[in-house]
Amino acid sequence: MEEGDPTLRLRIFDLNCWAIRYLSKWRQERVRLIGDMLLQDSFDLVLLQEVWSEQDYSDLKEKLRGCYPFSHYFHSGVIGSGLCVFSRFPILDTLLYQYSLNGYPYMLQHGDWFCGKSVGLVVTKISGIIFNVYVTHLHAEYCREKDVYLPHRLVQAWELAQFIRHTSGAADVMLLGGDLNMHPGDVGIRLLRGWTGLRDAFTEAARFEGCEDGCTLIPNNRFTVKAELLPFPQGVRIDYILYKAISSVTVKCEELKTTTGTAPGMDIPFSDHEAVMVTLHIQRQGQAAGDNLSTTEPALVDVVTETRTEVVVGLRAAQQQRHSTGRMAALALLLLLLQAAAALGALAGLVAGQPFPKLSFSLLAFLAIGVLLLATGLHLFHTMEVKMLQGTEEQMRMALRVLRERPSDG
Amino acid sequence: MEEGDPTLRLRIFDLNCWAIRYLSKWRQERVRLIGDMLLQDSFDLVLLQEVWSEQDYSDLKEKLRGCYPFSHYFHSGVIGSGLCVFSRFPILDTLLYQYSLNGYPYMLQHGDWFCGKSVGLVVTKISGIIFNVYVTHLHAEYCREKDVYLPHRLVQAWELAQFIRHTSGAADVMLLGGDLNMHPGDVGIRLLRGWTGLRDAFTEAARFEGCEDGCTLIPNNRFTVKAELLPFPQGVRIDYILYKAISSVTVKCEELKTTTGTAPGMDIPFSDHEAVMVTLHIQRQGQAAGDNLSTTEPALVDVVTETRTEVVVGLRAAQQQRHSTGRMAALALLLLLLQAAAALGALAGLVAGQPFPKLSFSLLAFLAIGVLLLATGLHLFHTMEVKMLQGTEEQMRMALRVLRERPSDG
Repeated sequence: MEEGDPTLRLRIFDLNCWAIRYLSKWRQERVRLIGDMLLQDSFDLVLLQEVWSEQDYSDLKEKLRGCYPFSHYFHSGVIGSGLCVFSRFPILDTLLYQYSLNGYPYMLQHGDWFCGKSVGLVVTKISGIIFNVYVTHLHAEYCREKDVYLPHRLVQAWELAQFIRHTSGAADVMLLGGDLNMHPGDVGIRLLRGWTGLRDAFTEAARFEGCEDGCTLIPNNRFTVKAELLPFPQGVRIDYILYKAISSVTVKCEELKTTTGTAPGMDIPFSDHEAVMVTLHIQRQGQAAGDNLSTTEPALVDVVTETRTEVVVGLRAAQQQRHSTGRMAALALLLLLLQAAAALGALAGLVAGQPFPKLSFSLLAFLAIGVLLLATGLHLFHTMEVKMLQGTEEQMRMALRVLRERPSDG
Repeated sequence: MEEGDPTLRLRIFDLNCWAIRYLSKWRQERVRLIGDMLLQDSFDLVLLQEVWSEQDYSDLKEKLRGCYPFSHYFHSGVIGSGLCVFSRFPILDTLLYQYSLNGYPYMLQHGDWFCGKSVGLVVTKISGIIFNVYVTHLHAEYCREKDVYLPHRLVQAWELAQFIRHTSGAADVMLLGGDLNMHPGDVGIRLLRGWTGLRDAFTEAARFEGCEDGCTLIPNNRFTVKAELLPFPQGVRIDYILYKAISSVTVKCEELKTTTGTAPGMDIPFSDHEAVMVTLHIQRQGQAAGDNLSTTEPALVDVVTETRTEVVVGLRAAQQQRHSTGRMAALALLLLLLQAAAALGALAGLVAGQPFPKLSFSLLAFLAIGVLLLATGLHLFHTMEVKMLQGTEEQMRMALRVLRERPSDG
């Protein structure tokens, strides 16, 4: 691809790297393998997720300096966002948007809350065309049958779509890569695509090579949890590259490839996810893609309504938890006050003798203080959750109003 | 102002309402007064901050339904963002961006952390012109001589500028109103204005009426803390309305007014802040304002460098606090382990008799657990703080690189 060329061929690599320090198997070997492959097979843009160790990022950066001189790591949360981008072309600007909801701090076994899940934006200009490149990772789905995180993931999908819509005004092309933790037909994907007009590189690709149906989490990968994939013998597709031409530019997907359970020519995989590799063909003189919204408006109203229903279900659950944690805090406070009254009573000599053994009395007080602090913390957390779910629900209601009014407008 | 008119006269009202439930004096009376005035004196856009009680918002909404049929409250944090907008024209879309840093949760007397300080965006279309209206409230300055919150406020100013730049691509005019908690010459204001090209309505206004120098926190207001204003006998200007024309539209500030210590015709003020009222004159056929960045680039490099230096100072302090809280957590853990060893020793009969009084032994253990939990929490918090300051510092370094390279580019 040359500067000034009227047509542009852009190669993009996307992978959830599963590089969690101390927890992910063969992490350092796999990161080294990813770096080797990126050096050999030169891409224009590399979008990575779950690079949790900043040391791994620094190592990759050092290794790839010659081929991908520009890069950015998105910091967020306690551990980091895990998101980073390597680019052959100068990165002109970046912005990070942290999702307002991201699971629960007390679900330690599902560490999502600590990761500060976000969407990162990188702006780059290639042959005079401005690209807004988004990379993200949404909340994991731990149990598809009873998915308690669905409202949070839908709030994230909504915020992602809103962030993309609002920040892409000055761009010619937008690209989104990442682990969306949603199957292609899920309401969140339909919402994201409908609300932004993004196209799915997999369905648009002229040529395809890789796992059946483009799956990116497959039983054939030695690191995937086989039990989770039992209902899906071929695997699932949850990693995506999406794109949209905004101004007078056309974008076509020439080719999409995935790895197939191992790194090419090796016997270990890059990650528990398969990599997605896309070749886009970008032409300047083409017709503008136009506002995709108008063509799909009735369907879009349905999708937003469906999402809103799920968000309201989440809102009810959050309100209930706010209520029950508040009640628990109140009970703990009551117990403490009773103990204080009893202790004061004993001190003032109103009660004869020493009515309670000291040790269990003070243990009980400490227990009450512990419960009070914990329940108050949870109550505050669920209050925030309620507010964010309410806010999203209101935004969706406004979106529905605008969607319904639009035909009468113009 | 009529639909379709080639020139547009837009009246904007901005006020930090100081409406904290239980804490702010005469809150309900003042909110009622604000509502009455907004009904009498009809504005096009009303930008309010510190409306912490959603009940106050609902009351205002109900009261203003006829005159300002469109409104939005931005939910965020435990208490809320306090930000809301009332509009005579349909609100088409909204987006909230929560700042990544906002003070410390343990500074309870400075409640900023709990407020989830944010910038809210409201998109509206008036006579075919798209307005991006931003409303925000940055971290308060409690002590100007030793301002420990300066790095956090500068991160917020940077994120505000970045958010505005990235989201305004599709707008014709951008407007920002709010309590920025910075004086006109402060580095954060210079950064915000330089990095976005926003103009200050006060300095641009053809007519001015109000407090000297446009001050919005004045000793003459009965609710201001007089001691804080001792070094500034006239008061300080920390509430702003800023604007910028993006596409082929010109915007001029015809008039700026402030209240002067009391609500007009009354003997109590609306708030501890003065209201800022602006009349803008917007013309379609004008020349595009152009990219203001290019004209001020050398100065901009200096401002970004100055801000970056302050952010690095904050980074060093955060790293030190992360270190000391980590050490405290480690010591508490050590104490607990020693106690556990002693208790096990006593149980196993290795130590003759009962070496410690049970009560003080268990109290010490509870104390150690308390310190461990607290220090771990603080350590995690300061780790996040370090990451966000690092991330901002990196973004600023990138901005400086792009600014310095730009002349050689074109």
